[in-house]
Amino acid sequence: MDGMSTDTKKITMLGLGAMGAAVARSWLSAGYELTVWNRTASRAEPLAAEGAKAAASAAEAVAASPLVVVCLLDDASVEEALADADLTGKDLVNLTTGTPEQARARAAWAAGRGAARYLDGGIMAVPPMIGVPESGGYVFYSGSGELFEEAQKALSVPAGARYVGEDPGSAALHDVALLSAMTGMFAGVSHAFALMRGTDVPPSGFAALLVEWLTAMAGYTHGVAAQLESGDYTLGVTSNLAMMVQGNATLLRTAEERGVSAELITPFTALMERRLADGHPDEGTTGVIDLLRS
Amino acid sequence: MDGMSTDTKKITMLGLGAMGAAVARSWLSAGYELTVWNRTASRAEPLAAEGAKAAASAAEAVAASPLVVVCLLDDASVEEALADADLTGKDLVNLTTGTPEQARARAAWAAGRGAARYLDGGIMAVPPMIGVPESGGYVFYSGSGELFEEAQKALSVPAGARYVGEDPGSAALHDVALLSAMTGMFAGVSHAFALMRGTDVPPSGFAALLVEWLTAMAGYTHGVAAQLESGDYTLGVTSNLAMMVQGNATLLRTAEERGVSAELITPFTALMERRLADGHPDEGTTGVIDLLRS
Ligand SMILES: NC(=O)c1ccc[n+]([C@@H]2O[C@H](COP(=O)([O-])OP(=O)(O)OC[C@H]3O[C@@H](n4cnc5c(N)ncnc54)[C@H](OP(=O)(O)O)[C@@H]3O)[C@@H](O)[C@H]2O)c1
Ligand SMILES: NC(=O)c1ccc[n+]([C@@H]2O[C@H](COP(=O)([O-])OP(=O)(O)OC[C@H]3O[C@@H](n4cnc5c(N)ncnc54)[C@H](OP(=O)(O)O)[C@@H]3O)[C@@H](O)[C@H]2O)c1
Repeated sequence: MDGMSTDTKKITMLGLGAMGAAVARSWLSAGYELTVWNRTASRAEPLAAEGAKAAASAAEAVAASPLVVVCLLDDASVEEALADADLTGKDLVNLTTGTPEQARARAAWAAGRGAARYLDGGIMAVPPMIGVPESGGYVFYSGSGELFEEAQKALSVPAGARYVGEDPGSAALHDVALLSAMTGMFAGVSHAFALMRGTDVPPSGFAALLVEWLTAMAGYTHGVAAQLESGDYTLGVTSNLAMMVQGNATLLRTAEERGVSAELITPFTALMERRLADGHPDEGTTGVIDLLRS
Repeated sequence: MDGMSTDTKKITMLGLGAMGAAVARSWLSAGYELTVWNRTASRAEPLAAEGAKAAASAAEAVAASPLVVVCLLDDASVEEALADADLTGKDLVNLTTGTPEQARARAAWAAGRGAARYLDGGIMAVPPMIGVPESGGYVFYSGSGELFEEAQKALSVPAGARYVGEDPGSAALHDVALLSAMTGMFAGVSHAFALMRGTDVPPSGFAALLVEWLTAMAGYTHGVAAQLESGDYTLGVTSNLAMMVQGNATLLRTAEERGVSAELITPFTALMERRLADGHPDEGTTGVIDLLRS
């Protein structure tokens, strides 16, 4: 295999759902020679009208380009879609969301089927952000560093391309970790809006306060990282666990006053209490991370 | 009662804990004539050395100024500290953290004891941010709008002063709602760091990604507000609930792969599933708020 053989002006794209179509379109607009395929063929028509070659089968699409990008529903659909394709010598970029283990297994599977190199991607954007650099959307990539370097220009067309290591599972892990953190934030936001229900405070006005507050408090994350790196969870603490646990009682009591279920915040307040009971009054919340081993 | 009688150059401050001392010091530095009292008298000494008058009792401190500010541990300690004080004609500003109901009850209690006007405060800052305008720290105030206007200059010395209405409980509600949202965000951040454990990704590098992501995603809150105001929870949705619920399976499966308990994110994913099962595939997560009525 010649490491420089990838002709990154020629791309095959499998999967033209909301995300796949947006990614494909960004390459078309940028002048790439694009071959596309979608299980439901009609979804390829608009792209064909814009200049893409629509292949009759996934196998035919794969044969058309050295670089094959897949963006399908889930990991199982990748295996299914590529079942009859000859991957020999192909570079495979898998933008389908999955777990780190699924990415590692898919990388091994691709190698076993003769693929040249494999990159896994975790897309940190929604379709309207694709091809819009100002949107700040980006994709984590992991796997073959060589392929990333070679294809970086093409990979940077749909969204910013960030390489996070040779372990094919690393992109998925980064992706899932950020989405999980966001899930926590949205849970907190939902609880906050529920508390404000029935007051005359307009949600939009309250949202402005929330966004300002969450943005300011996100910086707390840097302190957590410094504590994890030093191993000293009391490092730079300004609000200690003892005080926060006492404050939590006010949060829970207020939820009760307002008739709002506290189910979205109690798992965290319970772990804070457990860490405090374990004898760590001077820490912040970092010790909770140690309690999350299942 | 003469509405303009408050001499806001003269302030009495009860409670010189970490927060109370910081607030008191900001007034001293700004040239206010300050009388202080703290249950444990030794805590008043540094401030006395800086020019404050240290009163021998809370009653004596209250008698010294028309504007009385309390910043004590909790609502019960306010009642206890002021038990022997004559509040007749005094303006009371209560910076002690409590629930909305506690604030309302404390306002009624103060009026019953002859106090002129009452403001309740919710401090959105930690002590090092007090007296440091660049820190962005501020205090929500609610209760007497007349008192707020009159004392606004003095109240703006420790931190930005934001008035949120005549209901004495409004400041506490805003305070608790923002802290609850932050609790959710910290829970998500803790889960994310737990997932990254055991990789060679340095926590500080990952923190930078997290802060960037959470800051970008906080804006989602504006969309939730717009949906709440319109009553149409599908308004402007780019990632719908059906897709998010599917994505959640990847989050939970990844937690399992990594040996991380998902307890901090499952309450929210469960409510998303419930809302989807109720027949709302095209919404975002706003419908979850409706499920939080306890
Ligand atoms: N949309 C987003 O906001 C977003 C954000 C980040 C990441 N992603 C990820 O991007 C990937 C694609 O998402 P999407 O929004 O494009 O989803 P989508 O609109 O639901 O499209 C799913 C695509 O997968 C195809 N597919 C499903 N099962 C298949 C099978 N067994 N064999 C062949 N093709 C199959 C579908 O083909 P048919 O047309 O024939 O059904 C369609 O092309 C997902 O992994 C998603 O998690 C999406
Ligand atoms: N620190 C923060 O980051 C922060 C942030 C926002 C809001 N707040 C709020 O500010 C208030 C004060 O917090 P803090 O940090 O100053 O707390 P702190 O350092 O623990 O101080 C507590 C204060 O309350 C006094 N006190 C407790 N029980 C009392 C009683 N029964 N009678 C009279 N005085 C009593 C203490 O007096 P002794 O010295 O005699 O014990 C001390 O002055 C709390 O409501 C807190 O929630 C604090």
